[in-house]
Amino acid sequence: MLDPIQAVISGGTVVTMDANRRVIDDGAVSIDDGAIVHVGRRDEVAALTDGWITMDVGGGLITPGLINTHTHLFQTLLKGLGDDRSLNRWLLEMTAPAAAQLTAPDCEVAAMHGAVEAIRSGCTTLVDFMYVHPHRGLTDAVVSGLDRVGVRAIVTRGFMTRGTELGVPAPLIETADEAIADCARLAAMHMGDSRIQIGIAPTLLWMIGEEDLRATRAYASQSDSLITYHLAETDFEVAYAAEHYRMSESALLERAGFLGADLLAVHCTKVSPRDIDLLANYDVKVSYNPISNMYLAAGVPPIPAMRSAGLTVGLASDGPASNNNQNMIHVLKAGALLQKVAAQDPMALTAGDVLEMATIGGAQAIGMADRIGSIEPGKRADLAIFRFTNPFATPVHDPVSALVYASSGSEATTVIVDGRLVMKEGEVTTVDEEALLRSSAAAALGLASRAGLRPSATWR
Amino acid sequence: MLDPIQAVISGGTVVTMDANRRVIDDGAVSIDDGAIVHVGRRDEVAALTDGWITMDVGGGLITPGLINTHTHLFQTLLKGLGDDRSLNRWLLEMTAPAAAQLTAPDCEVAAMHGAVEAIRSGCTTLVDFMYVHPHRGLTDAVVSGLDRVGVRAIVTRGFMTRGTELGVPAPLIETADEAIADCARLAAMHMGDSRIQIGIAPTLLWMIGEEDLRATRAYASQSDSLITYHLAETDFEVAYAAEHYRMSESALLERAGFLGADLLAVHCTKVSPRDIDLLANYDVKVSYNPISNMYLAAGVPPIPAMRSAGLTVGLASDGPASNNNQNMIHVLKAGALLQKVAAQDPMALTAGDVLEMATIGGAQAIGMADRIGSIEPGKRADLAIFRFTNPFATPVHDPVSALVYASSGSEATTVIVDGRLVMKEGEVTTVDEEALLRSSAAAALGLASRAGLRPSATWR
Repeated sequence: MLDPIQAVISGGTVVTMDANRRVIDDGAVSIDDGAIVHVGRRDEVAALTDGWITMDVGGGLITPGLINTHTHLFQTLLKGLGDDRSLNRWLLEMTAPAAAQLTAPDCEVAAMHGAVEAIRSGCTTLVDFMYVHPHRGLTDAVVSGLDRVGVRAIVTRGFMTRGTELGVPAPLIETADEAIADCARLAAMHMGDSRIQIGIAPTLLWMIGEEDLRATRAYASQSDSLITYHLAETDFEVAYAAEHYRMSESALLERAGFLGADLLAVHCTKVSPRDIDLLANYDVKVSYNPISNMYLAAGVPPIPAMRSAGLTVGLASDGPASNNNQNMIHVLKAGALLQKVAAQDPMALTAGDVLEMATIGGAQAIGMADRIGSIEPGKRADLAIFRFTNPFATPVHDPVSALVYASSGSEATTVIVDGRLVMKEGEVTTVDEEALLRSSAAAALGLASRAGLRPSATWR
Repeated sequence: MLDPIQAVISGGTVVTMDANRRVIDDGAVSIDDGAIVHVGRRDEVAALTDGWITMDVGGGLITPGLINTHTHLFQTLLKGLGDDRSLNRWLLEMTAPAAAQLTAPDCEVAAMHGAVEAIRSGCTTLVDFMYVHPHRGLTDAVVSGLDRVGVRAIVTRGFMTRGTELGVPAPLIETADEAIADCARLAAMHMGDSRIQIGIAPTLLWMIGEEDLRATRAYASQSDSLITYHLAETDFEVAYAAEHYRMSESALLERAGFLGADLLAVHCTKVSPRDIDLLANYDVKVSYNPISNMYLAAGVPPIPAMRSAGLTVGLASDGPASNNNQNMIHVLKAGALLQKVAAQDPMALTAGDVLEMATIGGAQAIGMADRIGSIEPGKRADLAIFRFTNPFATPVHDPVSALVYASSGSEATTVIVDGRLVMKEGEVTTVDEEALLRSSAAAALGLASRAGLRPSATWR
């Protein structure tokens, strides 16, 4: 891995996302030993950093590295194999057969590919929810792939203990004890790791039982691990909770003692006002996945209502099989637009709101706001530099508007994680990108062939 | 302007969008003298084109040039000045003051900039609806800008005859006779032009009167011109029609004799099932602007219902002030996703459907299906070549899925309009793009300053 640089990033608009939401035109950020040292006007920082290397960003935007609070990077190999299908057909006809054929090398190359997409869109931290384990070692492979590319990540070790009657392949079923032991093993390996953390992830309602929620809670609380869980994504979960538990899914989670500030509830598309209050009482965190919610036709999560209730919301791409790229700039725009049209209110979610969700809000949502999510002295040096020079993003009256509403998604030029230059002037530095994409393409073809999968090809 | 090339475009998947929706893997298209000559397998076409230059596309996708059925390119200079506002505030606080300050050089550079965005996203034809005329010559300037960049276009000369009581600035008001005379003058200048046509565009319900609709209809029918009109974009128009005309807007248009197969009705966000039947009876065409409908929170147009009723639908970006870039690849994805989530049905609109809307459907919508919209011998040589080599668009199991759902929007490499290479391997050939973007940025700053406009900057 690269060494952290000592440098001054200078000459752009610094959007700090600090508590005062300070914005510094012609600003600078100095970094050393993996941390942010100074933040201020260009001349102020220059006076304090005599002799440091200066990187002039030429009038671009300097933001905290974006945070993607939910994805499943093994699905990188499945892009476009599940288009235009119902969620059940998508799960059972596409992701299930693929999961059964998945190998550790598949997972590693997919994670590396996905991490490069993250970096290329200015994203420095992602939460990968790895829920399929036909055999051991696949989460390890995802961790390895992310680590090699140099992003910051929380990899949550997913599991399912039931669901065969609804089509979950038997080889994917394991006990909560087995999954938690595997998770604890992996977590021990990454104890003290500056970039990689391990979390735990009971997959979703009908793939686990109430006792699994209790076991997960016990493990997470004693190990101080992030929990992720797909909550109320579709009407199916709502109906399932009503039929099997005679209560809402959120109420079940409360009964199981599962709710807490360390729970990242993904989707929440179908939470009721009562559920929202319940989640807010426990300071549960929310991951908003707008493109996936549209792609799978799950519905529109009530983000403004959740924010009004005090819930912290992070933004996310979801996996590449339900949002066929991992470009967080596209997610920013979609996140604002979906809420506007759903509410028929153009103020329902603004550029500022989604930028917050993708930075400090995301950091709060995954329990890392003490280390990342804003540009402040002492925080880890996770930075994204965007330059607006292409015709899509220009002319620029407002750089944040340009980033959220006009960018094509290719505007990130330089990206820094933990003080390391993982992308420099458009070149990913940690891997041979061309060779990686060739390996990824080969792995994708191999997996589709072994699993007997073909694209929907609704256009033929 | 460049000369048309004689060449064989070879070695990609040819998506013809012909009546049989033929797809040719490892196909080829030969073009000569501005027209398509042969379409077939690579070896078939090679045998018929001995001695022709061959351009190998290296396994990419060869599609009909995309068609953008609705934009207002003067707004290129206003990107990001109207974010996160109600449509009325957007119209009156932002576009109205800007319009009053608009110059012909502004319009020309804005149109050139927008045409470059079109080309860079694989779009070869666009319909520009130019509705603000503080003084004469602005539509001429838009035409000139589009012509210089070399796209195919229908520029519709918009007008408004009333609306000052609702905030339309008085200098923008003219009579229908004046507007139609100006339109006829411009149309005469472009009679027989291979790439530029002129249409007529009464702007929207509360900016015109019933007599203006009648005058427009008379002119369009005798001159064989496309009419464009913003129909039922928001609840405001619905309420206005009910209050002032005691009927739906579509019913008013019928009473005025305005409906016809040459009418491109833009938005149709708020049409009722009855309106849809009425529009279908007259074979009215529809322009679907998904990103703008979300951005302005107008609502979700009932596209599946309109298609079921037999209406022809084209796709569009809308102007850069309500969708801050003109990337048609982004519009493809948003177009499918918005309908899926609104219907809670992932089949509501598929990749195939939106690709159809952006090609042959768009051509039918603007009365040009005899010349463009599909790859068939005898049609004009308007082609887009997409290559999937970046991490967002790859791995590729299905090239159309990659285009619609995975692309970042920068995958168009080579674009041909009327047989002319307007973009070659990522280089726009007809203008100095860097100099153009500098001019556009300067014009944008100048216009904002003269009009006293500042960005919303909800993020500060």
